[in-house]
Amino acid sequence: MRLSCALLFAGGLLAQPAPLTVQAPAHSIPPYIADKLSPADRILFGRLMRVGLEAAWSAVTSEGFPLCFINELTPLNTDRRLVGRARTVRYLPNRKDLREKLYAASPQLNYRSAEEALPGDVLVFDAGGERHSTVSGAMVTTRFVVRGGAGILVDGCMRDVPDLAAMPISVYLRCGHASSVSPLMMSADYQVPVRIGTVTVAPGDLLVGERHGVLVIPAAIVDKVLDKALEHDEQEQFQRKLLLQGEPVYGVYPTLNESNKKKFEEFKKKNY
Amino acid sequence: MRLSCALLFAGGLLAQPAPLTVQAPAHSIPPYIADKLSPADRILFGRLMRVGLEAAWSAVTSEGFPLCFINELTPLNTDRRLVGRARTVRYLPNRKDLREKLYAASPQLNYRSAEEALPGDVLVFDAGGERHSTVSGAMVTTRFVVRGGAGILVDGCMRDVPDLAAMPISVYLRCGHASSVSPLMMSADYQVPVRIGTVTVAPGDLLVGERHGVLVIPAAIVDKVLDKALEHDEQEQFQRKLLLQGEPVYGVYPTLNESNKKKFEEFKKKNY
Amino acid sequence: MRLSCALLFAGGLLAQPAPLTVQAPAHSIPPYIADKLSPADRILFGRLMRVGLEAAWSAVTSEGFPLCFINELTPLNTDRRLVGRARTVRYLPNRKDLREKLYAASPQLNYRSAEEALPGDVLVFDAGGERHSTVSGAMVTTRFVVRGGAGILVDGCMRDVPDLAAMPISVYLRCGHASSVSPLMMSADYQVPVRIGTVTVAPGDLLVGERHGVLVIPAAIVDKVLDKALEHDEQEQFQRKLLLQGEPVYGVYPTLNESNKKKFEEFKKKNY
Amino acid sequence: MRLSCALLFAGGLLAQPAPLTVQAPAHSIPPYIADKLSPADRILFGRLMRVGLEAAWSAVTSEGFPLCFINELTPLNTDRRLVGRARTVRYLPNRKDLREKLYAASPQLNYRSAEEALPGDVLVFDAGGERHSTVSGAMVTTRFVVRGGAGILVDGCMRDVPDLAAMPISVYLRCGHASSVSPLMMSADYQVPVRIGTVTVAPGDLLVGERHGVLVIPAAIVDKVLDKALEHDEQEQFQRKLLLQGEPVYGVYPTLNESNKKKFEEFKKKNY
Amino acid sequence: MRLSCALLFAGGLLAQPAPLTVQAPAHSIPPYIADKLSPADRILFGRLMRVGLEAAWSAVTSEGFPLCFINELTPLNTDRRLVGRARTVRYLPNRKDLREKLYAASPQLNYRSAEEALPGDVLVFDAGGERHSTVSGAMVTTRFVVRGGAGILVDGCMRDVPDLAAMPISVYLRCGHASSVSPLMMSADYQVPVRIGTVTVAPGDLLVGERHGVLVIPAAIVDKVLDKALEHDEQEQFQRKLLLQGEPVYGVYPTLNESNKKKFEEFKKKNY
Amino acid sequence: MRLSCALLFAGGLLAQPAPLTVQAPAHSIPPYIADKLSPADRILFGRLMRVGLEAAWSAVTSEGFPLCFINELTPLNTDRRLVGRARTVRYLPNRKDLREKLYAASPQLNYRSAEEALPGDVLVFDAGGERHSTVSGAMVTTRFVVRGGAGILVDGCMRDVPDLAAMPISVYLRCGHASSVSPLMMSADYQVPVRIGTVTVAPGDLLVGERHGVLVIPAAIVDKVLDKALEHDEQEQFQRKLLLQGEPVYGVYPTLNESNKKKFEEFKKKNY
Repeated sequence: MRLSCALLFAGGLLAQPAPLTVQAPAHSIPPYIADKLSPADRILFGRLMRVGLEAAWSAVTSEGFPLCFINELTPLNTDRRLVGRARTVRYLPNRKDLREKLYAASPQLNYRSAEEALPGDVLVFDAGGERHSTVSGAMVTTRFVVRGGAGILVDGCMRDVPDLAAMPISVYLRCGHASSVSPLMMSADYQVPVRIGTVTVAPGDLLVGERHGVLVIPAAIVDKVLDKALEHDEQEQFQRKLLLQGEPVYGVYPTLNESNKKKFEEFKKKNY
Repeated sequence: MRLSCALLFAGGLLAQPAPLTVQAPAHSIPPYIADKLSPADRILFGRLMRVGLEAAWSAVTSEGFPLCFINELTPLNTDRRLVGRARTVRYLPNRKDLREKLYAASPQLNYRSAEEALPGDVLVFDAGGERHSTVSGAMVTTRFVVRGGAGILVDGCMRDVPDLAAMPISVYLRCGHASSVSPLMMSADYQVPVRIGTVTVAPGDLLVGERHGVLVIPAAIVDKVLDKALEHDEQEQFQRKLLLQGEPVYGVYPTLNESNKKKFEEFKKKNY
Repeated sequence: MRLSCALLFAGGLLAQPAPLTVQAPAHSIPPYIADKLSPADRILFGRLMRVGLEAAWSAVTSEGFPLCFINELTPLNTDRRLVGRARTVRYLPNRKDLREKLYAASPQLNYRSAEEALPGDVLVFDAGGERHSTVSGAMVTTRFVVRGGAGILVDGCMRDVPDLAAMPISVYLRCGHASSVSPLMMSADYQVPVRIGTVTVAPGDLLVGERHGVLVIPAAIVDKVLDKALEHDEQEQFQRKLLLQGEPVYGVYPTLNESNKKKFEEFKKKNY
Repeated sequence: MRLSCALLFAGGLLAQPAPLTVQAPAHSIPPYIADKLSPADRILFGRLMRVGLEAAWSAVTSEGFPLCFINELTPLNTDRRLVGRARTVRYLPNRKDLREKLYAASPQLNYRSAEEALPGDVLVFDAGGERHSTVSGAMVTTRFVVRGGAGILVDGCMRDVPDLAAMPISVYLRCGHASSVSPLMMSADYQVPVRIGTVTVAPGDLLVGERHGVLVIPAAIVDKVLDKALEHDEQEQFQRKLLLQGEPVYGVYPTLNESNKKKFEEFKKKNY
Repeated sequence: MRLSCALLFAGGLLAQPAPLTVQAPAHSIPPYIADKLSPADRILFGRLMRVGLEAAWSAVTSEGFPLCFINELTPLNTDRRLVGRARTVRYLPNRKDLREKLYAASPQLNYRSAEEALPGDVLVFDAGGERHSTVSGAMVTTRFVVRGGAGILVDGCMRDVPDLAAMPISVYLRCGHASSVSPLMMSADYQVPVRIGTVTVAPGDLLVGERHGVLVIPAAIVDKVLDKALEHDEQEQFQRKLLLQGEPVYGVYPTLNESNKKKFEEFKKKNY
Repeated sequence: MRLSCALLFAGGLLAQPAPLTVQAPAHSIPPYIADKLSPADRILFGRLMRVGLEAAWSAVTSEGFPLCFINELTPLNTDRRLVGRARTVRYLPNRKDLREKLYAASPQLNYRSAEEALPGDVLVFDAGGERHSTVSGAMVTTRFVVRGGAGILVDGCMRDVPDLAAMPISVYLRCGHASSVSPLMMSADYQVPVRIGTVTVAPGDLLVGERHGVLVIPAAIVDKVLDKALEHDEQEQFQRKLLLQGEPVYGVYPTLNESNKKKFEEFKKKNY
């Protein structure tokens, strides 16, 4: 939970002309998505928008999932938070015989995934790190955004990058290119577990991304993770307040000493 | 051709409080260049400022030039479009004997290329990917800008990077450094074909760059490429409009179905 | 020394509607640091904020220190200048036996370095380029900022990256991650010479960073370096003025011809 | 077709004390595999042992499969030729929830693939380039060799590397490691198309490897490829003979001039 | 423990003309080292020469040291086993001021480490991955070999590589170069913990290397590790025997089923 | 100068059962080249075959050419010494328009360079590090070898690698591939200075290569370099002898103390 007033107050105590900023601005669900979410998802996504990424990482890791953070991709916009649910596609280097079979059986999977996307979905394209052939572009992504799509993760590259950057979604990729998907790549599998960087993403996973990476949370543990992490965040807000008041790090962080623990109990009472 | 009004209109149809942005802002030739261009170049550069990079890539590729896109360099400013004509320089690792001969025969080529640059030129420095010695800096680039220089591409690095980023030109490079060109590098060849990333750039090529890379168009095909690509863009504007109105991707993109083709014909009539 | 008026004036001479910008904005010491510096440091830091990075590089190199520029790290904010004094920490891959001894003898060194930091200090963490385990985060950095810390250099990664980017300090790193320091890394040595990229940084070195890298200046030569470099910068301002007035690069840069040398002497008289 | 006698003869014509060696020694199917192959496979594998890798690459490419050569892996033994049929396994970064499901449904796939391997099979493990966790080792490979396994391709690493190098099979990998497969990786899919370097390998593909890489031939075109390539090889033997006799490359390679074409017709008659 | 007779026997059972080789040849301490070792070290080094690298890795990892395997370096000779005790040196990028102090206080550390080396020592040079400046060469290594030096690990490069490869020691490095150590590097610390690849090596650690990497064993746990691993190896020899006799992998590896466990008990009785 | 007898003698003094080998075997000009060299070249190449690579590097560097060593390529055979004279070719990424002009004006340059090669020449192909398209193969290299070609350096890749490795020449490359030169590359310039790794190679340069890299010696300084380096080598042989006799490194290497200097003078008298 964020208490930005506490920061301003703390600043005042230090008698500085301007309070020190030590925390990034808070995020909220973009309206074009929020309007389309189910009530349950609106609550879930709201909590995911608020949770500390590091606290959530600790909670996911301590649940037995240490390989949960993707930091190999680059976000197009550094000031957004990605929150959404994974819908996965696996690409392979192009091959005439397989491509013919695959594309006869189903539309190309970037079309299909955009068309079937639910509000809040994140398309996760495993393109094996390919840097010379794109998996999708602005036109299909426009359809995806109209349907309430929240983001795109590509272990590979995309075209129309300036258009993608202007859209309200969050996009992470290796790099951009102006090519079409062929002749180097083809979409092969839909809604299977895929590899992005050093992490496996499964359909339905919850994703939370900031400028330094994307956390992958299996759906089965997301509530537990959020409970733990948000509680941890509350303590960090208190610790931040103490530090801004000029207290030394010892006794404050990472664990509060006895005296500060008491103050924290009072702090919690006041704030609820 | 861009029809940004159509987007706002489409947004209105969807009855959203704010229309969805799905396209990057349009670009125009910077005034300090435009003023100095010949009338023919002003028209050509204007079309290059407007064309879709991806449509142009398809046209260049289908003319028999698939190795035409440089995505290995990083632009200093992500919100500009580079448009210009290539003026090339090839650098080599420094060598006393060759350097003496070369520099006796001609001024160092970053000076000479800036001094001889025509309005709208892009200096293309092939420095073999070097990351510890720069090829040029803010002083010589000031002269280049005064002459109407449009951009710089370096497969290597440059110094004075904050100054370069503040100038109105577009600069792409591997990274920056504070060093001078010596003792590691020397300029060796002027106005010869050079390698930038995985692409050959020849003197006189037209270059179009966005944040995800630079398209290289041989001068002999630039008009044909622009005709094809701008026509394609017009259809994409119509397709984008349909998608924003909520139509599914099938039947709209990449090819219009019969019913939408008819609508497109009417759309074209209305817009001219 | 910067003479931004000269640039506007030059622009006027060229009779352009808007003067050409060819120089990045000037920097000054952030107030939260300036207030805490000793008078001597306030003068020193002021000169370091003003000096041209490239001129200073030349001066440091000509003093016999050619390995002085770090361009392997990425700054979180591209529009700031880092100025500060190095306080170093060396990390090693985690090892139970050594960790137990080290952490029994002293607090973890990211805590200790933040707690002992003097105003204007830059924490320099040599983490061997590690990309999957962080060395520090927003909480300890808050303490560091409260104490007047000026910046952080990490040959490795940090957590809480959006918070760090919102703080008034300058941070350079390989990438971000959401992990804690364990289980992959441990802090091992404090205030010893460390390796960052291809440069050795020693405790007490003065650091000056821009978006393209960080210059390392041994304390013993910093005054000599500044004298030389600031004098060089003054000449560059004059050269820039001539170039903006439309003079060719030959005779102006890198060395002034006889006629321009005389003009420079007059220019210097006028400006003092 | 190889005519090593022709080379010795050519050497004699040049009146050198020792003939020039310009061709690698011929290969044959290792006895432990040959004994177990079906008669049809013995013929097929024999032709694959003999065919020029470059001629076969041209034939595969001209059939519409340009992405057919893997040169990102390193062979443990540089003097062997790999010939075999692909049996594929896909690995993913480990994940507790998926691993439990997968391993409940089927034995770990390196065990299963070794146990189900047919004579002449090549295990193809797509481990996404992982360098810190192995997919298999000497014990399971012993079982694989006993069953007539011909080779292993790993886009990742293996353990027990000295033992693997001592076995009669051909092994290609990124590097070695002493770890077990867990805790970083898990086997996920069996006999599906996989990515190795920049190539898709499908179950049943024929593989031919030398020290510089592995050619992937879809089963449906292998006979056509071999017919074309072996005929091309015969001409290359003749061309090599001419070159060893001292003829200039023009008129001999890549295409024979009229006079040499006639000689080639005679040469073919003599040799059959 | 190795039972190579068992392999030949197994081969015989399969009625093959030649037995299958599935295991690398055994190693022993080179005589020029063995003669100089203390009796205790001769026993210890003998066990380290015999132990399975993978079994030892498991034992070290399960003792709480998972970061124990270096696979980033390349051995000059692929058919040797490195066994020895770490003597460490840390290099840093050259810096005139520090170098003068360091070299005034002690001889350059590659001289000193060679001169002080005890029989069976392995010089471990942490040069931060440097590829353009060497840390040592054949002359100083000759002195090291005369003193009974067992090997060299360099996270960097060495000169005189063909001479080093001809010596009886084991050398692992990033690459070679013909340069001297200056002007790019300097030796800075002696007998401190250093980083090689992703592993910390401390003075006194026991090192065991094969062609795929080097295992680092803290001295305090080496006996426990060897006990566990050699017992595991004995079972693997039995498992290998079963597999060579044609038994399926299930029930044999990784764990013996009940029936095979009984056979193993008998096997152990017979062999002692 | 090599004195291998001294080594055996030294070994005898140490009373070891087998003398320590501390030096790679000597090299000589392969007969198929030696027969074709001019008398002057036979002397020059003989000295280059004998000189210490590191001593020659020091001499070249002290003549003002520090960027003279290529260690980015891999030799196909690690036990050979390359000696020869550079004949250079520059490749560029393929481009239809330029290719047509280039190939109309001259045969493809790998044909031409092989056909025009003089005995002892080394073909130096600058292919910009390309890894997916080869510049030449076994057929053209056969012609090159017949003409007395000594070696090939490719900053890129070649086909027919096993055949090349079986030939008596020395080949260095990035990697191999089975492709032809098109469609990705084209030869563009002949006998111009080229970049290989971080070194400029000019036509006529003398090249000396071992398994760890290739030294580039401008022709104008080769005699001076050899005089200096061979004299240095003679002293190293004496130093090696002392070290093998058990003398400490101090007083012997890198500089002889007074007493050892006298012994060296006597040693030189005895050996001439």
